Amino acid sequence: FDTSPQAVRLYQLYNHWGMQVLIYLFIIVDLGLAVFEEPALIPDMPIWATSIVELICLMAFTARLIHYSKVISHERFWRDPKNICIIVIISLSLIDMITYVGLKTAGHFGVRWSRLLRPLLLVNITEGRQLRRAFRSIRNALPQISYVFFLFMFSVSMFSLMALKLFGKRGLKTMEGTPYFTDYLEIVFQLYVLVTTANSPDVMMPAYNYSSFFAVFFIVYILINTYIFMSVFLAVVYNNYKKYLKEEVRQLVKAKRRKMVRAFSLLQQSGLGEEPAVSQARWKQLVCLVQPGISSAHRELLWSVSDENKNGYIGKLAFVQLPDLLNIEVITMKTRPHPLTTRFPGFYESTASRFVRRIVQHKAFVYIYDLIILVNAVFIGLDEENPFIANAEWVFLALYLLEILLKLYTWDPRAFFSRHQFWNWFDTVIVIAALIATIFNSALTSSEGYTSRQILDIVFILRVLRLVRVVDSIQRFRTIINTLIKIGPTISTFGQLILVIYYIFAMVGMELFKDKVHFFPPNSTDPHKDYCGNPLLKGTAFAKFNYCKNNFNDVVSSFILLLELTVVNQWHELAGGFTAVTHVSARIFFVIFHIVVVIIIINIFVAFILEAFFVEYTVDKSHLQTSIEKKIEE
Amino acid sequence: FDTSPQAVRLYQLYNHWGMQVLIYLFIIVDLGLAVFEEPALIPDMPIWATSIVELICLMAFTARLIHYSKVISHERFWRDPKNICIIVIISLSLIDMITYVGLKTAGHFGVRWSRLLRPLLLVNITEGRQLRRAFRSIRNALPQISYVFFLFMFSVSMFSLMALKLFGKRGLKTMEGTPYFTDYLEIVFQLYVLVTTANSPDVMMPAYNYSSFFAVFFIVYILINTYIFMSVFLAVVYNNYKKYLKEEVRQLVKAKRRKMVRAFSLLQQSGLGEEPAVSQARWKQLVCLVQPGISSAHRELLWSVSDENKNGYIGKLAFVQLPDLLNIEVITMKTRPHPLTTRFPGFYESTASRFVRRIVQHKAFVYIYDLIILVNAVFIGLDEENPFIANAEWVFLALYLLEILLKLYTWDPRAFFSRHQFWNWFDTVIVIAALIATIFNSALTSSEGYTSRQILDIVFILRVLRLVRVVDSIQRFRTIINTLIKIGPTISTFGQLILVIYYIFAMVGMELFKDKVHFFPPNSTDPHKDYCGNPLLKGTAFAKFNYCKNNFNDVVSSFILLLELTVVNQWHELAGGFTAVTHVSARIFFVIFHIVVVIIIINIFVAFILEAFFVEYTVDKSHLQTSIEKKIEE
Repeated sequence: FDTSPQAVRLYQLYNHWGMQVLIYLFIIVDLGLAVFEEPALIPDMPIWATSIVELICLMAFTARLIHYSKVISHERFWRDPKNICIIVIISLSLIDMITYVGLKTAGHFGVRWSRLLRPLLLVNITEGRQLRRAFRSIRNALPQISYVFFLFMFSVSMFSLMALKLFGKRGLKTMEGTPYFTDYLEIVFQLYVLVTTANSPDVMMPAYNYSSFFAVFFIVYILINTYIFMSVFLAVVYNNYKKYLKEEVRQLVKAKRRKMVRAFSLLQQSGLGEEPAVSQARWKQLVCLVQPGISSAHRELLWSVSDENKNGYIGKLAFVQLPDLLNIEVITMKTRPHPLTTRFPGFYESTASRFVRRIVQHKAFVYIYDLIILVNAVFIGLDEENPFIANAEWVFLALYLLEILLKLYTWDPRAFFSRHQFWNWFDTVIVIAALIATIFNSALTSSEGYTSRQILDIVFILRVLRLVRVVDSIQRFRTIINTLIKIGPTISTFGQLILVIYYIFAMVGMELFKDKVHFFPPNSTDPHKDYCGNPLLKGTAFAKFNYCKNNFNDVVSSFILLLELTVVNQWHELAGGFTAVTHVSARIFFVIFHIVVVIIIINIFVAFILEAFFVEYTVDKSHLQTSIEKKIEE
Repeated sequence: FDTSPQAVRLYQLYNHWGMQVLIYLFIIVDLGLAVFEEPALIPDMPIWATSIVELICLMAFTARLIHYSKVISHERFWRDPKNICIIVIISLSLIDMITYVGLKTAGHFGVRWSRLLRPLLLVNITEGRQLRRAFRSIRNALPQISYVFFLFMFSVSMFSLMALKLFGKRGLKTMEGTPYFTDYLEIVFQLYVLVTTANSPDVMMPAYNYSSFFAVFFIVYILINTYIFMSVFLAVVYNNYKKYLKEEVRQLVKAKRRKMVRAFSLLQQSGLGEEPAVSQARWKQLVCLVQPGISSAHRELLWSVSDENKNGYIGKLAFVQLPDLLNIEVITMKTRPHPLTTRFPGFYESTASRFVRRIVQHKAFVYIYDLIILVNAVFIGLDEENPFIANAEWVFLALYLLEILLKLYTWDPRAFFSRHQFWNWFDTVIVIAALIATIFNSALTSSEGYTSRQILDIVFILRVLRLVRVVDSIQRFRTIINTLIKIGPTISTFGQLILVIYYIFAMVGMELFKDKVHFFPPNSTDPHKDYCGNPLLKGTAFAKFNYCKNNFNDVVSSFILLLELTVVNQWHELAGGFTAVTHVSARIFFVIFHIVVVIIIINIFVAFILEAFFVEYTVDKSHLQTSIEKKIEE
């Protein structure tokens, strides 16, 4: 590691938050190109325009990589698979782009296959640590999952064989009049769909109508494959998730400890005690360097926790604890006087003012406002075109504003708007936004005599969101919500994971199924409307359910369609539409999507929520935290 | 506790397995009466017949209860809620039966409401310990679940309000042409159905077709209510399940210890050591009394584990361990010689015989039979009316029989058919059953020239089941299957739980919806067939999907319908059919069923499978088990 000032400056520049934001911005632009590229949401963008933007993004990634190679040693740079990955992605993208532009200008057919690789940039940049960890944990869980999956598929194929033998020769017909359970591969697919419950009970009805005894076959099938196997999948995913997460955390803690020991050996001074130690002055210097914003009271507190025997120096053990100590959030509850007390002491401390403040602090104040919210909910439910209701809205807005002002009058505004007061922020933002939107809306209505539906939509959403506040008054609800809010940041990792997977599937889906299905607006009179503009869809459930807008014609539609497939219900009808317009093998795409997203990713999500709640239920304050609390009490 | 010989005999009679089987038999008969009672699966049973059978059952329960009251003290009898419960159930059933018979003979309308109480007998008999524990754990989890549920319902109602405001005034139409999202209660129901994913994506399509932006509303809704809240439900159920199960187990262990300490104080002898102790002779007497079938080698082993220092007597601590020791299964691997060795030593040990046995023990033997199974699978898939295929079946049967005979020749039949050899039993039973069924089938075909489909069905099922054996050859699969087999016994408790809940819902459903929907066989030409014999169903999805057989007209149909509701898919269409023929408030029945069975019971099932797999993955041999193993090694 080069420790020259220049190298350190380069390193600091690399880790500067501005650079990190910039690289995320370039990734977003690169991913967002899908909106303009064929098949485009916003069409008629020339190829050269998107190509140049992509080229700029690729150059930015290259520059970032070169910067990184300057910061760390060559040997470590080339040993790191994520750097190799980025280099491969950039080169492949370049090759693909050149061939595509070449083919297109020559008037040939071309496929932009390198678009699949784009989301992998998100995984391989330095900041994608959490995302890489998630992928690693999936990769590690794969062997276990695949054993269960093969056993599951064996079970499905055995049941299919049984179904073929039991029902194939009976000449039964499905609802659509096609032969029932006569083709083995078709049965396997139908029974796979039954595992996802999407065609229950329809798939059973012909056999059940023939004889009640055949229901037993389906009951046993559902019990084994839907309930037991799907739970086993969750168990395997959850177990691996826990195991590998623990392993990762252990390695992280080890690495941290090793680095802190190295730091200690650099900073240690002899002559302070029997063992090497670090003096308070040097410790203070270090803390101020690492966390410039720390208050001196907070720093003193940390020191008094570290230096328990008040020696004026600390040993290796206490020093190594430093990062953990810095991580513990200490909320400084400053009981500062209200600004009005210092400005207008006579007025603020008068009997009337004290009375108002006592009212606001009273429990009944909260109850009254909860009641107001409930009344407001009823008013929102009523017809807003009634002038009485419309005017009542102003009264409610005024009441909510009054509440915020009264609270600001009673409590210190700096405490009211401190970082941890989620609900105060929520209230204020919603009420002020509603106020602005309502004023804007009535200004529009009175001046131009027409109401914009978009603004009204926003006003309605804000009004309803205001009601959410009532949740905070109920202690039990608050704890549940707090747990969910705590999960928030980690959910963002999960969101990126989903984005990567969806993006890859969307790209493949768009290449396979673009422009096969067309959407006609509801008021269109086009005769093709009934079968989504594709005669192959005539008579299919896809056309009958009017699913034409669920297509792969642009990236946004694709994402919404993939979301519908994730929710599972009717996925076989959606898949059926696309197999009708292409080939029966298109089912493979949809089945793979189901396996990857529903069986693996969604189970990780569930495992993740389960774990968060279990941790919340068995919360155990760490040793350090309690020792800090003890010091504070002193 | 009365310890006179007469009382002990009475107590032993009470706990005799025959009595327990008898009481279960009476409960099954009592529950099974639903098949004959109105609305009946097997109709035309006079009321007096079912009433007399029920009376006999009730008398049996009363007799059992009186027997129990003689066994334990009066005070304890009346303090136990389960006895009170049974008395209440019996008296209510009697009252209901008398009034019902009275009303019916007078030609009036009557409802057998006490049938709801019948499954509660299953919960309240002495043997229903596990089931009571399950219900207790549900009851204990209820407060926690209800907080989450109220928060969830709050979220649903807020989203519904938003939906009403966003979509109500836009004049959108659903697929059926009805107004879209204009009635608040209808929206709440539709969005509740969306949580179960049963109407996704149909409920979204009108809004999505109008504008892509509205998809955001549904995406946020699904994310919060379907994914997050449903996972939170699982977390809460799982957490409570674990917590209360632990508590129950702790109390059980405590009670066991207390009883063992009492037993020790009765049996203790002084003068053996410094402390009171129990001599080996007395210990041996006790073990032989408690577990008459124990082998002397096993008993000696247990004694040597208890009496580690070889004193000839054991103290309190070692004595208290006895039940745990007795619970550990010790598989006695008797390496007895093959019976043929003793009968025909010359033949069995000949070169040819040795060669055959070496082949059977060779790995390749297993592989060859796996290959045969695979070939057999292909043959089963082919058309069995081809004479070549039909004859091949005899070859396969012969091969399987040969395998079993060869194995019996090589290994000791007593070891081959020992209790723990699940797969050997499975193989033998399936192959012999297939042999009998096939012979029976061909005898029928050749003598009367016709093939019975029922027998053919059985033959096919047995043939396919034979293929399942291949699973045992793969180590990874075996461990998964073993875990599932281990869960088996505990699943029976779960099965009883489901039975109780289903039975209650079936009884209510039959009273509410009987004979509203009629099923016509597929070949019927009745003009009412298209709408299930009820004009109110004309044009509903229920009739369109041909769900007529999903009705509450008898107890078996009701159970199958409830199972379909448990699987969730299309439950809103099923509910829609029954609301169409009765009243919109019938939805309440279906929503309550969903909450009770899907949100609570199924989550318990999933929690249960998760826990079983986690225990399997982190299996830790207990201290006692290892000490037994150590002794065995010695």
